[in-house]
Amino acid sequence: MTENGVSPRAKVLTIDTMNPTVKKVEYAVRGPIVQRAVELERELSEGMKKPFAEVIKANIGDAHAMGQQPITFFRQVLALCSYPELLNDSTFPEDAKSRARRILQSCGGNSMGSYSASQGIDSVRQDVAGYIERRDGGVPCDPDDIYLTTGASDGIVTMLKLLVCGEDETRTGVMISIPQYPLYSAALAELGAVQINYYLNEEKCWSLDISELQRALDEARRHCNPRALCIINPGNPTGQVQSRECIEDVIRFAAKERLFLMADEVYQDNVYADGCHFHSFKKVLFEMGPEYSNTVELASFHSTSKCYMGECGFRGGYMEIINMDSEVKAQLTKLVSVRLCPPVPGQALMDLVVNPPQPGEPSYDNFIKERTATLNVLAEKAKLTEQVLNTVQGISCNPVQGAMYSFPCITIPEKAIKEATDNGQQPDMFYCMKMLEETGICLVPGSGFGQRDGTYHFRMTILPPTDKLKILLKKVKEFHQKFTEQYS
Amino acid sequence: MTENGVSPRAKVLTIDTMNPTVKKVEYAVRGPIVQRAVELERELSEGMKKPFAEVIKANIGDAHAMGQQPITFFRQVLALCSYPELLNDSTFPEDAKSRARRILQSCGGNSMGSYSASQGIDSVRQDVAGYIERRDGGVPCDPDDIYLTTGASDGIVTMLKLLVCGEDETRTGVMISIPQYPLYSAALAELGAVQINYYLNEEKCWSLDISELQRALDEARRHCNPRALCIINPGNPTGQVQSRECIEDVIRFAAKERLFLMADEVYQDNVYADGCHFHSFKKVLFEMGPEYSNTVELASFHSTSKCYMGECGFRGGYMEIINMDSEVKAQLTKLVSVRLCPPVPGQALMDLVVNPPQPGEPSYDNFIKERTATLNVLAEKAKLTEQVLNTVQGISCNPVQGAMYSFPCITIPEKAIKEATDNGQQPDMFYCMKMLEETGICLVPGSGFGQRDGTYHFRMTILPPTDKLKILLKKVKEFHQKFTEQYS
Ligand SMILES: Cc1ncc(COP(=O)(O)O)c(C=O)c1O
Ligand SMILES: Cc1ncc(COP(=O)(O)O)c(C=O)c1O
Repeated sequence: MTENGVSPRAKVLTIDTMNPTVKKVEYAVRGPIVQRAVELERELSEGMKKPFAEVIKANIGDAHAMGQQPITFFRQVLALCSYPELLNDSTFPEDAKSRARRILQSCGGNSMGSYSASQGIDSVRQDVAGYIERRDGGVPCDPDDIYLTTGASDGIVTMLKLLVCGEDETRTGVMISIPQYPLYSAALAELGAVQINYYLNEEKCWSLDISELQRALDEARRHCNPRALCIINPGNPTGQVQSRECIEDVIRFAAKERLFLMADEVYQDNVYADGCHFHSFKKVLFEMGPEYSNTVELASFHSTSKCYMGECGFRGGYMEIINMDSEVKAQLTKLVSVRLCPPVPGQALMDLVVNPPQPGEPSYDNFIKERTATLNVLAEKAKLTEQVLNTVQGISCNPVQGAMYSFPCITIPEKAIKEATDNGQQPDMFYCMKMLEETGICLVPGSGFGQRDGTYHFRMTILPPTDKLKILLKKVKEFHQKFTEQYS
Repeated sequence: MTENGVSPRAKVLTIDTMNPTVKKVEYAVRGPIVQRAVELERELSEGMKKPFAEVIKANIGDAHAMGQQPITFFRQVLALCSYPELLNDSTFPEDAKSRARRILQSCGGNSMGSYSASQGIDSVRQDVAGYIERRDGGVPCDPDDIYLTTGASDGIVTMLKLLVCGEDETRTGVMISIPQYPLYSAALAELGAVQINYYLNEEKCWSLDISELQRALDEARRHCNPRALCIINPGNPTGQVQSRECIEDVIRFAAKERLFLMADEVYQDNVYADGCHFHSFKKVLFEMGPEYSNTVELASFHSTSKCYMGECGFRGGYMEIINMDSEVKAQLTKLVSVRLCPPVPGQALMDLVVNPPQPGEPSYDNFIKERTATLNVLAEKAKLTEQVLNTVQGISCNPVQGAMYSFPCITIPEKAIKEATDNGQQPDMFYCMKMLEETGICLVPGSGFGQRDGTYHFRMTILPPTDKLKILLKKVKEFHQKFTEQYS
């Protein structure tokens, strides 16, 4: 009570008076497990005794944080662009200098400190278009259809934002895979759109069944207006790589059902399994002929954060927009202009990814060496992870065909399920929290991505260095065995 | 018509079926005038004949694009962080190296390519807190109250997003100054919040009258729920610097009327006029005593884009949150985690801005020299702009006390107003478009920022290099005279 007898001034902004859609957002990848992991790290550094010497974070696809090295050429060019005095430094290779000069010439006042066009720097968008054409065997790409973004996250949220309208039964519904990357559910919650779940088929290596898409769509049509279908390929958290046939089927489905397609292809270079190849939705769409390529609306997304570069912190990315209504496109351009522009260093990096050293250029050999080494190690670790996890009774793991994660199914004993639910916790959250406290290993519970009722999973990145990954897998194995015994 | 007689498949996403709130967004700073300016540049470069040799863009606060030079020290550190091999290069000063080492040590895997904590890198937030304490004469600042952002734009939109709720008469209203920086109206339109206009007093040098705040608030309360008050100081587009008394009055008003305060202070170092000083809302709030400092909710925003650094392309910024409800703060932290993190190079740059070279360090003298030179030139150009514009009959310009813009009032003859409105154009858009076509000078019409009915303005940055600014001002003068004659 204050002097005049009224209670202290209530806040203007409280949990009860804040934006209700923001409250509905959930984001597991950086949720309570990770917060506890950070606390544990602090406690360890303060000398507190724990049953482990270090916290190993396998919760997020953050390659450099796990020790992956950046591509030398990319960083040389970024340094040259940051401090152009270095263009006079003879230790920098000529191809790095010429890339830097080209980027700087496209910047206002020759400085990365200028705002770029809101859609992104022209020359970078041209280079992206050239990359897409080469990647897709010559299918044409118009730089005007390219929007540079602040990481793929930004592009995905922007596209979803354009799509949302209507109230109640006419509210926009968006189909997303379960398990999903939780950016999608978070963005849909924030936008107040209806999330339509379709389940990937765990028995068939997390593949996508059209019959399941149809089931989910038919059900959703009873209470909302489904307008978009999101695909992640290669998959996060599930690590599958879609076959060409599957992609064709999805495109046919989208055409028949009038759905806007969103293809999240940020892992397009992360394909490891024999017989698996990356097929872009754009390429398949165009090879299916004009009936499809002139009509199906598609947005596809790429990023500097994954693949062999793993440059998450620069927040680079692009989206390509196919068959978008021209008035809507003008609205999109206006919308992105409000935030002024994506970060220019991220745009520069995206440019290097799509326009790396060419045969004959001084940096070519080293670039290929570094890229190959990184991708080979990832392929090895993908295999290792699958193999070791499948030796554990009560853990069953699909092959990690691509991307950077395994998402094994775990058997949790009834007693543990009961203890968790009695405490109001998801059983796999209970499991992962216990693993963190006992081993220092930080994984994300499957419930953060979605899974079929009654099944439990965790997501684990394959990114730790091989020696650490081996320790991690051994500890997971031991923990699982102990946990199973304890609750049996 | 296709073979089977139905019209070609209608698009899923059309202007009629897209998000209606996005359609309502307007953004003048990058609107039709700028698009035409870009076209004109292209036409010139293709050899087309024009009544001018170059397009001079004075439409946007993009310092480097206008030739302002980056601070050497900042760019050295960024180069070192981008390509840490350079730490072995003896030509880089030691203080640059030690800053780079500190930043890299705070990055996962010592790489700017790692995602940071979503709230921003810990050590950067600590440095920001130290800066604020020094700036505010020792008023304490908790690094936990600091959120690093993707430019100030990102922080502003995020805070507005938290505040919006309710329907119809209970819908959140947000008070913004008119003229305003159009990010605010755009964000409010997108969020479906109610924009409450309060007019700055052009007769009194664009100052803020509490009676006008009260008028706007009382009127708004009849149809919405006003919850926040946004202030831009120093002002964009109006260039005024608020007095300490005015800030106190605003804080008292916010306390009495229970409004969440948002203080946009991105121009905090851009103060030129004699007798004007920058007072942060935070400092004034705390000096008003616990009755205010313990209750009034405040978010203040800063950026790497303005002041003497002008590093817009890096998209660095921070916000400080005072007296925010702890549950809401947890929601804010969750919300920002969905986008993963602000760009790390922008965070690094923000760190350098708040922790520049210190006396005794090798880069100190040069840093001070560069900063002072830039700010002095801006002060000169502020004065020059005001002086020249006020020599033109029919143009009347308040002093540019701070920020980077003048926003003069222009007299447009009745005949021109009629011609414009007959063409469905705002009269000042008509004026600026004509100026662009005839002189190559790109300004933004006052209608893009808001102005009292029946008054007309344009916004012009003071950023072009002095010699170009002189030409520009001369051309504006001649154009205005000719235009006035033509339509009289
Ligand atoms: C499937 C998928 N899409 C998008 C993203 C967003 O990445 P960014 O915003 O860093 O480009 C991620 C990040 O992990 C992802 O896994
Ligand atoms: C008043 C004001 N606030 C915020 C911004 C946003 O700047 P940024 O997002 O580049 O930090 C600007 C840019 O001009 C501005 O003038």
